[in-house]
Order: sequence, then structure tokens, then C-alpha cells
Amino acid sequence: MSVKDIAQEFTRLCKEGKFEEAGQRFWSDRIVSLEPMDGPMARSEGLAVKAKGDWWYQNHEVHSAVTDGPYVHGNQFAVKFTMDLTPKTGERAGQRLHMEEIGLYTVQDDRIVEERFFFGG
Amino acid sequence: MSVKDIAQEFTRLCKEGKFEEAGQRFWSDRIVSLEPMDGPMARSEGLAVKAKGDWWYQNHEVHSAVTDGPYVHGNQFAVKFTMDLTPKTGERAGQRLHMEEIGLYTVQDDRIVEERFFFGG
Repeated sequence: MSVKDIAQEFTRLCKEGKFEEAGQRFWSDRIVSLEPMDGPMARSEGLAVKAKGDWWYQNHEVHSAVTDGPYVHGNQFAVKFTMDLTPKTGERAGQRLHMEEIGLYTVQDDRIVEERFFFGG
Repeated sequence: MSVKDIAQEFTRLCKEGKFEEAGQRFWSDRIVSLEPMDGPMARSEGLAVKAKGDWWYQNHEVHSAVTDGPYVHGNQFAVKFTMDLTPKTGERAGQRLHMEEIGLYTVQDDRIVEERFFFGG
């Protein structure tokens, strides 16, 4: 598949709300996930990325999600996510939040080997 | 200035339609600009980046522009641009187009040293 094909199929699944399926289908076994924060979530790799996703979905109620994209350059593509959500735990538990972020994905050998998130706000 | 401060000021100028001023204020003398296309526009550097911008504004009529962001991660930030425009030259001359793209900016020593554009659609 071309990077554009992978970008479009990944984004199509996200637009249908199938974020976990999109990851499972295209993540490399060696996927590295980078978040713009300190602490244990800043960098995770391989199976820990799926575990991070599982934790996230268990601890957030998603009211609505919009996915825009993909936007392609070479072996990378970007996707914009907009979500209204309520954390179930932590210091903002019970507080409805509006979240915008961009995911930047790097493709090698038909798999996503890195995802890097950029936070808005 | 922090990367976040630069990102916010750059994006503020873009939201006011001051795209050229944003570049002039924050580009490094060694700015490298990368576009996802073949040909002479694919990579430009330094003064050639300003020349490319001048050419672009002379050859496109912009009807509306919306800037979303910034989205920050480490020493990089992303901005989403949405434009309705009509090229004045080329094979699409006179045709009104809807354009979405993401710009990914890399900051070093308070200057933008690389801009990399991702095209949608």
C-alpha cells in the first residue's frame, strides 16, 4: 500500500470511531508513541501503546469525536482529532472538556512505526 | 521565548491573515521549506522561501482563510490552514479550490528552522 492509501484507510476507521481498530491494523510491533507531557505517558513502545489506549478508553467518556484528514507528506501523514470528553478519574474527573490534537504518523514498510501527538489549547 | 509562545504568536498572525509577517518574524535565515510535491517547489531554503511565498501570493486569489492551532510537541508545533482560493495561472487557473493543509514547524534558538507542509484531499 502507498502511504496515502494507509493514511486514508487509517483515517477512515478513525472517522467511524474505530480508533483502536485503526491502531491494531496499522501499528508496527515496534510502534513508538510520543505524547507532549512529562511522566510515564511521554513515551511508550510496542504492546505498551495498546495498554495506554486501553487505559485511556476505560478512563474517559467520549461524547463526540471528529477526525479531519489525512494530510500527507512523504512517508508521514497527519490527522486532526477534536473530542468532547469527560475524564472518569484524575484531577479533572467529571469535568467536560473540549480537546483538539494532531497526530503525526510515520510509515515504514506499510506499518506505522511512530505516532507523535501535538496538543492544542 | 518558549516554543509555545512562538507557536501562539506565529498562529495569531496567521489568524489575522498576516502569513508573510509571521514568516518574516520567525523564520531563521536558514529556513528550509518542504512541500509534498515534485519539482522546484519541493525544497527551498533561506531567501528562496520568501521568494516562493511572494510568487504564491501573486498567483493566487485568496477568498477566505481559516487558521486552527497551534498544536505543540517539544520543539515542534503544527497549524492547520483551510483556504478557498482561485489560482491565477497554471492548469487550474480561474478554478475556485478548497484547500486544507497542515504546517509542521521546527523551532531552534527561537527561530523556525524548518516548515513541512502536509496536503489533504
